[in-house]
Amino acid sequence: MTQPHRFERPLRIRFAHCDPAGIVFFPQYLVMFNGLVEDWVTQALGIPYSQLLGERRIGLPIVSLHCEFDAVSRMGDDVTLALSVERVGTKSLTLLFDCVHQDQVRVRSRQVLVTTDLATHRAIAIPPDLRDALARFVRD
Amino acid sequence: MTQPHRFERPLRIRFAHCDPAGIVFFPQYLVMFNGLVEDWVTQALGIPYSQLLGERRIGLPIVSLHCEFDAVSRMGDDVTLALSVERVGTKSLTLLFDCVHQDQVRVRSRQVLVTTDLATHRAIAIPPDLRDALARFVRD
Amino acid sequence: MTQPHRFERPLRIRFAHCDPAGIVFFPQYLVMFNGLVEDWVTQALGIPYSQLLGERRIGLPIVSLHCEFDAVSRMGDDVTLALSVERVGTKSLTLLFDCVHQDQVRVRSRQVLVTTDLATHRAIAIPPDLRDALARFVRD
Amino acid sequence: MTQPHRFERPLRIRFAHCDPAGIVFFPQYLVMFNGLVEDWVTQALGIPYSQLLGERRIGLPIVSLHCEFDAVSRMGDDVTLALSVERVGTKSLTLLFDCVHQDQVRVRSRQVLVTTDLATHRAIAIPPDLRDALARFVRD
Repeated sequence: MTQPHRFERPLRIRFAHCDPAGIVFFPQYLVMFNGLVEDWVTQALGIPYSQLLGERRIGLPIVSLHCEFDAVSRMGDDVTLALSVERVGTKSLTLLFDCVHQDQVRVRSRQVLVTTDLATHRAIAIPPDLRDALARFVRD
Repeated sequence: MTQPHRFERPLRIRFAHCDPAGIVFFPQYLVMFNGLVEDWVTQALGIPYSQLLGERRIGLPIVSLHCEFDAVSRMGDDVTLALSVERVGTKSLTLLFDCVHQDQVRVRSRQVLVTTDLATHRAIAIPPDLRDALARFVRD
Repeated sequence: MTQPHRFERPLRIRFAHCDPAGIVFFPQYLVMFNGLVEDWVTQALGIPYSQLLGERRIGLPIVSLHCEFDAVSRMGDDVTLALSVERVGTKSLTLLFDCVHQDQVRVRSRQVLVTTDLATHRAIAIPPDLRDALARFVRD
Repeated sequence: MTQPHRFERPLRIRFAHCDPAGIVFFPQYLVMFNGLVEDWVTQALGIPYSQLLGERRIGLPIVSLHCEFDAVSRMGDDVTLALSVERVGTKSLTLLFDCVHQDQVRVRSRQVLVTTDLATHRAIAIPPDLRDALARFVRD
């Protein structure tokens, strides 16, 4: 991590991300950011994402999404995906994302995720271990 | 079309749209809305989408995206996807989308698309035939 | 259905199916054939696919796949997807697929699917209602 | 690489790879193997894949595909994807793939790829630099 409170991972843009225009098909950015959330929860927060959804049956669906696409990405580009926490609520968290190539921010996104019970898909309070881990991530 | 200025298509939610939580994986809604734009351009505006991008090398990428996810969709659900035009600019158009099941709006989206030259990925003025077709669609 | 024992559905090749080479990205054919199986089970066999996997927790995963890709498909092409039954075993069925454009077969596939218990992912005997429906489909 | 003539890469199974049955949706394995081919061409053969398809307009589409699915993969599993060369022809190459978890081979695939001119999608002779790199990879 090059900055505090910021989780970053490199990614190479692949053939399968791109469309007939030769550039990343925009829903693929959301798949990439979703993968970044997985890595962040598992690696930075220390809570295995697959256990959260699997054994514990706690979901993290998105309820609000905003994206700005400022520049295109092409196959073979090496980009950096990054995530930071804007706000932690009772049942939701707001995350900021970007996709950077060299010094150019190509995509920005703000996403509100809620913690849900996967049996009912209803929002539940953020579980204590996740809340503590979020507090540590924001503080450190 | 059940309402003026509104383009609608039915869609059945498929296995391939859904995630391990058993509900539509949210980037798939954006793939669905992208398919709706294709059908709208071809069928309602009368301009074959594949020629626009293929022979004419004019792209319609998204530059700004907003989505609200209010309720989940499950495999087998029969939903209606709809699109209307909010604004036509010089080089861009703003579209409103929703995904409705029975009387419940599950997903809403506002998207700004720009017309681009696919050789350079730079914005260009909306070509006259597309502009005329948009005017007719909004008026009729 | 234009031939006995053959289930067919039209499909328009979309932007989202295609890759930077401007042609269908081959895994997308498998997503399309998977959707055809859903429609066939629901519409031709009369067993709602989403109930089979949902309430009844019976899966239909693939265990063996063969595909030949003879010609490319491009965005905007109107193709026909078709499915027929080659063999019904105790716990598995073998299906033949093709993707045809005008009179040209572009893709052929043979797939062996097994019925499984989704709690354990182990093979189970084809349930009686599915077996009866398969017998009717092959006979009629 | 743990074995001669074998190119391997680790991969973590993600949420986006999995279906409502909680296991990898099989077309996703083909997307993963396609990504492995990209890495192999670029890193092991020393020919940037994005230049091959981009500037040089040489494609590597699949013409024949065989897969056996022996065991399921779940979200969070750490697997190894591997590739080896079975045969190099004049205009085609045959690759063998597997996806291994601990000592269990879960998926095996044999794929025949052809080199094509992306302007015409017709097969062309494997270009000399790719042929030489393949010879070195098989020999070393």
